[in-house]
Amino acid sequence: MQPNRSVSGDMEYRKIKDEDNIEDGVGGDIGTSRGVSPSTVASFSGGAIDRLQWKRKTIVTLALTILTSSQAILIVWSKRAGKYDYSVTTANFMVETLKCALSLAALARIWKKQGVTEDNRLSTTFDEVKVYPIPAALYLVKNLLQYYIFAYVNAPGYQILKNLNIISTGVLYRIILKKQLSEIQWAAFILLCAGCTTAQLNPTSDRVLQTPFQGWMMAIVMALLSGFAGVYTEVNFKAEFAPQSFGAAAHAIIKKRPSRNINVQNFWLYVFGMIFNAMAILVQDFDAVVNKGFFHGYTLITTLMILNHALSGIAVSMVMKYADNIVKVYSTSVAMLLTAVVSVFLFDFHLSLAFFLGSTVVSVSVYLHSAGKLQR
Amino acid sequence: MQPNRSVSGDMEYRKIKDEDNIEDGVGGDIGTSRGVSPSTVASFSGGAIDRLQWKRKTIVTLALTILTSSQAILIVWSKRAGKYDYSVTTANFMVETLKCALSLAALARIWKKQGVTEDNRLSTTFDEVKVYPIPAALYLVKNLLQYYIFAYVNAPGYQILKNLNIISTGVLYRIILKKQLSEIQWAAFILLCAGCTTAQLNPTSDRVLQTPFQGWMMAIVMALLSGFAGVYTEVNFKAEFAPQSFGAAAHAIIKKRPSRNINVQNFWLYVFGMIFNAMAILVQDFDAVVNKGFFHGYTLITTLMILNHALSGIAVSMVMKYADNIVKVYSTSVAMLLTAVVSVFLFDFHLSLAFFLGSTVVSVSVYLHSAGKLQR
Repeated sequence: MQPNRSVSGDMEYRKIKDEDNIEDGVGGDIGTSRGVSPSTVASFSGGAIDRLQWKRKTIVTLALTILTSSQAILIVWSKRAGKYDYSVTTANFMVETLKCALSLAALARIWKKQGVTEDNRLSTTFDEVKVYPIPAALYLVKNLLQYYIFAYVNAPGYQILKNLNIISTGVLYRIILKKQLSEIQWAAFILLCAGCTTAQLNPTSDRVLQTPFQGWMMAIVMALLSGFAGVYTEVNFKAEFAPQSFGAAAHAIIKKRPSRNINVQNFWLYVFGMIFNAMAILVQDFDAVVNKGFFHGYTLITTLMILNHALSGIAVSMVMKYADNIVKVYSTSVAMLLTAVVSVFLFDFHLSLAFFLGSTVVSVSVYLHSAGKLQR
Repeated sequence: MQPNRSVSGDMEYRKIKDEDNIEDGVGGDIGTSRGVSPSTVASFSGGAIDRLQWKRKTIVTLALTILTSSQAILIVWSKRAGKYDYSVTTANFMVETLKCALSLAALARIWKKQGVTEDNRLSTTFDEVKVYPIPAALYLVKNLLQYYIFAYVNAPGYQILKNLNIISTGVLYRIILKKQLSEIQWAAFILLCAGCTTAQLNPTSDRVLQTPFQGWMMAIVMALLSGFAGVYTEVNFKAEFAPQSFGAAAHAIIKKRPSRNINVQNFWLYVFGMIFNAMAILVQDFDAVVNKGFFHGYTLITTLMILNHALSGIAVSMVMKYADNIVKVYSTSVAMLLTAVVSVFLFDFHLSLAFFLGSTVVSVSVYLHSAGKLQR
């Protein structure tokens, strides 16, 4: 069988998926002001808030897992009818616009309740927003590299190399956030990477071992860029973690206005997302949009996909807020396995022995991650 | 690549290998009397003996790992020149005879030092020896089943199903010896099984999933028989573990004469091994032996293989004595990986991505087994 990451291994999907990583949430009525973020509260309170936090963490993690796995299924579904008829860049633009609108809606609620204050007003300065495009820029560089790496590896090989992201996230998480993982949790993280790769093995996978040195270097740089952007986003959500070691940019974004409302920050992040995607439309799909219209080829499934991506973006931001990058990586890995299992029923997939073995290893890894935590 | 278990996946090898499991050691001058077995001493002494025990455990485990991996290489080597020219049953018989001789040599040393006593004299009664053939009989049943299982699975599929032995050893170890593994160690054991199977994956492995119900049942029964024989042998070596729950037979063998010298017990076990293999010669290779002679087709490599198998038998018995079945399973699993790596240099093997992933999982499993122990 082909786990869905390979199934949906086309460039467009990757691009739309990677851009999820720069999402921030719109919080709604949960933890709307950074000053009283749940983790800050938990640090000086008892079991009740710990339980509440655990419950929130579980719910947002489950939501992200379900959204991510249905994402891949929607993509397989939309491909079933043939190829994509719409411009993927316009879909990405719509996702950013939708999230921007959701941020504004959340802000409107807050304005109604608390009134417009210095912390939640929308207007901003160049000094405040100049660091926001950093994650978006990191992903842009990564997406550019993506075009070049195919000179060295084929598409299924690239899917396998993408599992390096798991390792890079762990390493950067350790270096930048200075949060210690226990030895058992490190072992679990290595297993997660090995298990995900095993689940994706197919008869042609061995070719990836013939990847030339340049290909490996590019794959490692791409994994680092992606991991760095993820950790950067987490820092963005958790002012309490911002360590001195984390470059000047992150410092600037957090230290300057620690009490600034997160929805305002999200709003500006999404505005940059819209700008980046508008540029992508101009470069890639200008002719198609001019000749056939912006929404050409949109179907019900396209609309569902855009909705799903926007909600996933919110879920990612909540996981970053209530949990961390490590949980996010686990969540998306489990989602990959879930998609393959669901695909057996929906698309008559066949699961390989490698998939069962990989899933077993990933399951043990999930167990070890939580078992390792208890011992600290 | 083909890790050597598959390479040496022919029936003859399996048979010669399985019979290793009923080996008991000849102890030599180490812990010659059950009454003062090292583990008994350690229970009421300090760090020095703990360290000595740890050192012994490490040395015998390394010896078993090296002997097991060179075993498979010798087999590949002997096959390089073509097919086997000798009768495998006569080789098995020679292995038993050699071990019998080594037991006698160890006994002779003891007789010289301590004189012949009630505990170390060779003569025995029917009551004492009647339970000795049990492990041999278990393996005989298993070897018979082996001929029938090929109606349901092919040879590479059988190699994959053999990894069920790892799980059965763990489960029986838990049930019969009542020795607790920590949760982390259980997780490690599941990983060992998944990792070994992953390392052996090849493009045709998926066929094993189509194994019919009868095939699965037979594989499970075979794994249980093999696991039971292994645990039985361990009980045989460790009087202090013999629990009430372990059937009457094991009771009989241990409780009756707890001070009986282990080399006497081994001697009789090997005599039964010789009898069983003599019967196998009559059934399988009678014509060849009568027409071409007992030692037809023996080469230097055949002789080395017999020597290696006899020494492996001794190493297994020492691992059973100073360590346990779990360590033995780890040792043979690591040996399988070692052989594949050595084969890259010797036979120009190519290692697959699955092999690297499986090896990673096995390595993490080995780490977790010892990390899990520390936390108890």
